Amino acid sequence: MLEALKQQVLEANLALPGHGLVVFTWGNVSAIDRDSGLMVIKPSGVSYEAMQRDDMVVVNVETGEVVEGEKRPSSDTDTHRALYQAWPGAGSIVHTHSRHATIWAQAGKDLPAWGTTHADDFFGAIPCTRQMTPEEIQTRYEWETGNVIIETFRQRELDPETIPAVLVNSHGPFCWGKTAAEAVHTAVVLEEVAYMGIFSLQLSPGLPAIHSALLDNHYLRKHGSNAWYGQKK
Amino acid sequence: MLEALKQQVLEANLALPGHGLVVFTWGNVSAIDRDSGLMVIKPSGVSYEAMQRDDMVVVNVETGEVVEGEKRPSSDTDTHRALYQAWPGAGSIVHTHSRHATIWAQAGKDLPAWGTTHADDFFGAIPCTRQMTPEEIQTRYEWETGNVIIETFRQRELDPETIPAVLVNSHGPFCWGKTAAEAVHTAVVLEEVAYMGIFSLQLSPGLPAIHSALLDNHYLRKHGSNAWYGQKK
Amino acid sequence: MLEALKQQVLEANLALPGHGLVVFTWGNVSAIDRDSGLMVIKPSGVSYEAMQRDDMVVVNVETGEVVEGEKRPSSDTDTHRALYQAWPGAGSIVHTHSRHATIWAQAGKDLPAWGTTHADDFFGAIPCTRQMTPEEIQTRYEWETGNVIIETFRQRELDPETIPAVLVNSHGPFCWGKTAAEAVHTAVVLEEVAYMGIFSLQLSPGLPAIHSALLDNHYLRKHGSNAWYGQKK
Amino acid sequence: MLEALKQQVLEANLALPGHGLVVFTWGNVSAIDRDSGLMVIKPSGVSYEAMQRDDMVVVNVETGEVVEGEKRPSSDTDTHRALYQAWPGAGSIVHTHSRHATIWAQAGKDLPAWGTTHADDFFGAIPCTRQMTPEEIQTRYEWETGNVIIETFRQRELDPETIPAVLVNSHGPFCWGKTAAEAVHTAVVLEEVAYMGIFSLQLSPGLPAIHSALLDNHYLRKHGSNAWYGQKK
Repeated sequence: MLEALKQQVLEANLALPGHGLVVFTWGNVSAIDRDSGLMVIKPSGVSYEAMQRDDMVVVNVETGEVVEGEKRPSSDTDTHRALYQAWPGAGSIVHTHSRHATIWAQAGKDLPAWGTTHADDFFGAIPCTRQMTPEEIQTRYEWETGNVIIETFRQRELDPETIPAVLVNSHGPFCWGKTAAEAVHTAVVLEEVAYMGIFSLQLSPGLPAIHSALLDNHYLRKHGSNAWYGQKK
Repeated sequence: MLEALKQQVLEANLALPGHGLVVFTWGNVSAIDRDSGLMVIKPSGVSYEAMQRDDMVVVNVETGEVVEGEKRPSSDTDTHRALYQAWPGAGSIVHTHSRHATIWAQAGKDLPAWGTTHADDFFGAIPCTRQMTPEEIQTRYEWETGNVIIETFRQRELDPETIPAVLVNSHGPFCWGKTAAEAVHTAVVLEEVAYMGIFSLQLSPGLPAIHSALLDNHYLRKHGSNAWYGQKK
Repeated sequence: MLEALKQQVLEANLALPGHGLVVFTWGNVSAIDRDSGLMVIKPSGVSYEAMQRDDMVVVNVETGEVVEGEKRPSSDTDTHRALYQAWPGAGSIVHTHSRHATIWAQAGKDLPAWGTTHADDFFGAIPCTRQMTPEEIQTRYEWETGNVIIETFRQRELDPETIPAVLVNSHGPFCWGKTAAEAVHTAVVLEEVAYMGIFSLQLSPGLPAIHSALLDNHYLRKHGSNAWYGQKK
Repeated sequence: MLEALKQQVLEANLALPGHGLVVFTWGNVSAIDRDSGLMVIKPSGVSYEAMQRDDMVVVNVETGEVVEGEKRPSSDTDTHRALYQAWPGAGSIVHTHSRHATIWAQAGKDLPAWGTTHADDFFGAIPCTRQMTPEEIQTRYEWETGNVIIETFRQRELDPETIPAVLVNSHGPFCWGKTAAEAVHTAVVLEEVAYMGIFSLQLSPGLPAIHSALLDNHYLRKHGSNAWYGQKK
């Protein structure tokens, strides 16, 4: 079942330690098959060294039921489900505790767009969610983590297709994309700009965001219907 | 004697440079066999490249006597002994000078719980001990290092089973766990959160600790009788 | 056509990830053949793993026309062209988003000469350009990026042969040299001194530049007609 | 001539990039044979990849004459000579531009002893020299670099045998030891404590030095006639 998608999800999970984004088992990637409404996700707490394609777990996005797989799905499964339900454009979701994105999340601060490295993949600041309430934490924590992300985008009128990442307050980043490879790419870029942002701000306290004309130019050359960057496809 | 434990201690010692936690010989791991009251510990000043299982030294935890082994035990042996005597739940102890945990120790500051990365393995701040007195340093330094750790936990009413690490003032971290692998795991996590903490605080001076509900949720899903994270065992 | 130059440009491009200066495809190297007025440049958006000598694109520096190659040239081609046209001494140009040079660019600050590491290769501060205007960004962005670099050197009366690098505001560094290997060398040195500069300034706010006598001595022993460093050639 | 010493010096030079202390050719190691008054030193500007034992240059410490070797000796040769002449206990000298030691040198600040990592190998702060005068720079720069180091130790009444490193203002570190391996070891330790010091000070502005009793204990267990650390020799 969904063998090609399982392979993509496996490779994307293995790419996380390859890019230095995760320690131990602190990350997970899923991807959804929109036709069947099923998602493939990493098992919970299995080491990257031992992970095989058949360890991937197939979950019904609507009900949360495990449809195939002998292992428990990632503990963050319900966060992934909530985002797939809310955002039809999301094909894959990545969660990590990568150092510098997590630092911004722990500090509870949005990461401004301070350069073209950021603008090439994000059409503005990466938002940080509000803190979750004790009620949200104590009842359906992982599901409510998804909800607070969705609320952040809705209340601030952000488009998850042009800002494909979020910082969950006191926790860490979630990223997404059309494919698992694209979501991992976004997680790498986020970590780069999170690092650069910390020290850009130290060099220049109060640093304003990149000029909107430059943000537009860099983002739109790579994304949307008028994109022209790279080789013709 | 204790060949399986020696192998575990050897592997745990070798894991320290593997995780980038030690330079040269600056680290040591021990583990205790509670039935016999004997501990196995790294020899003093032997390079990790050359270290063999039979270099591990067996020491009587009560008396400090070397029971087996041709090499001198780690210079920190008496610190390990003091902790094993005080804390029956400790099965292994790890000491490193890993960069960022050592920075907090040198600064003489507790490392607050600022995110879920921390909360997944520590049920609150990592304490930093008071400075040791000249008397403590000049008489039984290594033994008194253990005592000042024990005092820190007792006076602050901390439980070493839920806060499995300490920062020794002006020195560096000690971590522990049920097994050598678990203690090494804790040392890696401590280094990660020590790094993140430095820059989280720079981004947000005066940053409060993680909300207690979130600390509870993350710690208790992985630890204690109601833990549910990972695969069934 | 220009096979030896293509090989040099390929090797220089591959050296960028080798030195840890680029992530994904975020960098490009070109080199010019002054006799023919042709430059060889990296193709746009091709991964370093897959890149071959025949992927290099030959471009007419005067007209911008692609003379040979099946792929599109780097999106920054017009910036390279503008610099080659303005500066007859430039034989190769390198662009990266290396972390610490980019931090200075994002902060919009010149990088002062704070030590002999800097003085060995740069005869003074690395300038940061002014921000580009919306008009410049919206019309011929890449070409105008070259122009703002040229303007910076002209207005400040800097010599691109003795200061072979610039920080493009909100963007990142460009470096150059007589050969592709030399330009890559400069990009590595820039990243080193950019890193050191961030923390030198933190240790000593208001730190003045290196003494001019020391700058002279270190720069001139390696560069210019009286250079004597290294082996006789 | 001095083949064993050449091999030690070669290996020590190669250890510098192995420990991440040098980029390109930015480092050099020498060692002296006190009986003959000859020193062996790295050639100037030769890449570490290509370096062979027979590239090492033999120099008369008294006269500066090259006694053997086809290559020019390191540009820092006269600094090494000055130190060997002043300090009979020095058997080997290492110079690097390692990032964090260089940051302290660029900032023009002494590196205080802030922890036991420092105290294990340095019996107090690492001094930073005064800036050199234009006269010193313009006449016999490398020789005067040695002199300003010697002056620093003499005026502050520091013992180069117990403080085996210095930060040359606006430049970078020099370290020394009885053997080439020991001098490299010191260079590694210096880089570790230089890194830790930057962030220890950020966490705790105004941080006082380690308590003198702790400094004594750690230094003296590893050094001097009563040292006991490690295995019996």
